[in-house]
Amino acid sequence: MTRISASKLKEHIGKQVKLQGWLHNLRRLGQVNFLLLRDRTGLAQAVLGKEDLAPLENLQTETVLEICGVVAEAPPAPSGVELHDVKVEVITPVAEILPFELNKPDVAATLPVFLDHATVGHRHPRRRAILRLAAGVADGFRRTLNAAGFIEIFSPKIVASATESGANVFQIDYFGQPAYLAQSPQFYKQIMVGVFEKVYEVGPVFRAEPHSTTRHLSEYVSLDVEMGFIEDHFTVMDCLTGVVGGILAHISERCAGELEMLEVKLPLVGETIPWVYFPDAQQLIYKREGIDARGEPDLAPEHERALGEWAREEFGSDFVYVTGYPTAKRPFYTHPDPDDPTYSNSFDLLFRGVELATGGQRLHLYADYLAAAEKARLPQETCAAYLECFKYGMPPHGGFAIGLERFVMQLLGLENLRWAALFPRDLTRLTP
Amino acid sequence: MTRISASKLKEHIGKQVKLQGWLHNLRRLGQVNFLLLRDRTGLAQAVLGKEDLAPLENLQTETVLEICGVVAEAPPAPSGVELHDVKVEVITPVAEILPFELNKPDVAATLPVFLDHATVGHRHPRRRAILRLAAGVADGFRRTLNAAGFIEIFSPKIVASATESGANVFQIDYFGQPAYLAQSPQFYKQIMVGVFEKVYEVGPVFRAEPHSTTRHLSEYVSLDVEMGFIEDHFTVMDCLTGVVGGILAHISERCAGELEMLEVKLPLVGETIPWVYFPDAQQLIYKREGIDARGEPDLAPEHERALGEWAREEFGSDFVYVTGYPTAKRPFYTHPDPDDPTYSNSFDLLFRGVELATGGQRLHLYADYLAAAEKARLPQETCAAYLECFKYGMPPHGGFAIGLERFVMQLLGLENLRWAALFPRDLTRLTP
Repeated sequence: MTRISASKLKEHIGKQVKLQGWLHNLRRLGQVNFLLLRDRTGLAQAVLGKEDLAPLENLQTETVLEICGVVAEAPPAPSGVELHDVKVEVITPVAEILPFELNKPDVAATLPVFLDHATVGHRHPRRRAILRLAAGVADGFRRTLNAAGFIEIFSPKIVASATESGANVFQIDYFGQPAYLAQSPQFYKQIMVGVFEKVYEVGPVFRAEPHSTTRHLSEYVSLDVEMGFIEDHFTVMDCLTGVVGGILAHISERCAGELEMLEVKLPLVGETIPWVYFPDAQQLIYKREGIDARGEPDLAPEHERALGEWAREEFGSDFVYVTGYPTAKRPFYTHPDPDDPTYSNSFDLLFRGVELATGGQRLHLYADYLAAAEKARLPQETCAAYLECFKYGMPPHGGFAIGLERFVMQLLGLENLRWAALFPRDLTRLTP
Repeated sequence: MTRISASKLKEHIGKQVKLQGWLHNLRRLGQVNFLLLRDRTGLAQAVLGKEDLAPLENLQTETVLEICGVVAEAPPAPSGVELHDVKVEVITPVAEILPFELNKPDVAATLPVFLDHATVGHRHPRRRAILRLAAGVADGFRRTLNAAGFIEIFSPKIVASATESGANVFQIDYFGQPAYLAQSPQFYKQIMVGVFEKVYEVGPVFRAEPHSTTRHLSEYVSLDVEMGFIEDHFTVMDCLTGVVGGILAHISERCAGELEMLEVKLPLVGETIPWVYFPDAQQLIYKREGIDARGEPDLAPEHERALGEWAREEFGSDFVYVTGYPTAKRPFYTHPDPDDPTYSNSFDLLFRGVELATGGQRLHLYADYLAAAEKARLPQETCAAYLECFKYGMPPHGGFAIGLERFVMQLLGLENLRWAALFPRDLTRLTP
């Protein structure tokens, strides 16, 4: 008999079927017992007599089972059906008790305990929904960009020099010489604008963050975009707005069940997302909150939260751009504002008051790079290859990067980025 | 005026248009001159009078240009159209001469010279076609698996221990303690079978290959699959056969232009791919080629070549599976053949005589892992998290990994894997 999945049970009412999966729960009531089997599609309930339980003696939840039975309507059961005349066969017995239960509505563990046992903890239906949603976000990102003619690239993660700042880079022993883990595909995606004009990458990036916060990881998945022949950073923001809209449309279609289980209210994104110029944002925060950050070179988390609230109240938008960050605080390749070089053609996108994406227009003239590289004291030999593409003609270009886990965290209102990652890495955590 | 792309020129015959791109070639014939502009979609020809060339004085190919003109039919030009009444404007001037020409039918450089200047070398139309094909292979892989209900995962690349063998692993300084770059997502994809049953990943893997060959890199893109509730390795091979077929169908549809330019003859994959049992393969090589490798624990490249030729002659197939590799030569997690534990439930897939994918059934019982881990002398503390998933119930499962660059290399008949990579990493190469 061919195995069917739990989600297809109701298509087989009155028929004999075979299911395989994990023992999610067993309610022993004596003569009548209810077994919940979990497979990749969901849960199936089977009704067992006392003697049918014999194969499960001394076994625990998560035992891998095959169950055969006849599908019958049963309104209170999952999907309104259950199995009768059941035969249970053990595929893989489990004798040990789980570190925490997987069959409660919520994950019954604190974050550190959960992370220690995430290899099994991810089997919880809510965890599966979150991870499926993350896959949906990445898929929506790629589909939106493929449809717009962007080409996917796979840039190297072992690199000769830091791309962002030398401070938070991991060093590798590369056949006896020092090398580094890429902090971003920044140099490569720019280089590839010279090849394809429009490129994207979905891949890991590595940041040796020397501090522990609820919204940083040492390794995360970056959704990177870079595009040529732009007017300025507003062209890039238009693209990002379209990408965010594309992701949300994709998951609302493909992850409807997950969004429902997790009680996610999808944010609305219109044709445009409101934006505010950096100095104006500081002025606004001062007026609204009395926090005087005017003249400071960057926004602190509390400033971003205030701007998020303002955007929601003022525009009914969960998203808001801040544009024109001070040039001094942005990477050396950032294009200054031609009208006021103190500020730059850059932006952050805040999602419910937290930085979701960062981007901007880049320098594109070779001479500008030579000057910027000298000013930033970049090691000439290691960035020579990067600079070569500018020697041979680069158009005005820019791009952005979205943190995948950040997107999921903000979408679900998780309090810690680690709840949105598969197996997070931080200052103290290297396993599982 | 809105920019149009070179590929859309013929839709605008008789109209004024604007193009932007790179100066691909300029044939100066005196009064009449032919300029080829390259953008992400292809080439466009513009006819210029002597005086129209003024903006290009002292400039070289790869100068970034905007050209406006009227589209006219011209059968000998690319796409049968060209621009007349042309006005050229320089966006980014290029004064230096390229390290090698990009406007010859083939890349006019040896591999080392090309790799030194790959940041601009990839702009060659053939290089672009190869990289687009690689993107198409990855996209076809994901689409095929998404359609079959597989979930994409993003496993960490910084890990606490080697997964395959301790010999070729890169060490990192992880906040003062040693860590490693993942040689494969093997442990994680197995763990995630316990969560989703069917998972895949597209991501970088890292191998500190201490030797230099034409078909190994220190970093490459691995297309990984793992699935649960299998019968044995033949279930996994069926999946792989479907994935290879899905990839080929996808690129034949989406990369038709690239396949034509690169003169690729797509291999045929039927419903099934022929397979040969490891000891029979050795016997066959002995009979056909007189090479006596009988009893050796692995196949050498010349053996794989011979098997590739055999499969092509005998079955008209560019693909052939070799099954049942000796258990001793496969990783500790490999499931032995229950009928003869000397051999294993494993396979390689050869594509035109070169290993394209490797896979098999894995152990799934906790007790088997404890025994195997001890035999393989795995450090208990670092693989404890991996082993935990087996403690709590894993179904019979297996999977495979395809090397993305290998696939492209074999598809195009490239003589060196480095021609199929974006920015390859090897013993001596760390840039660009």
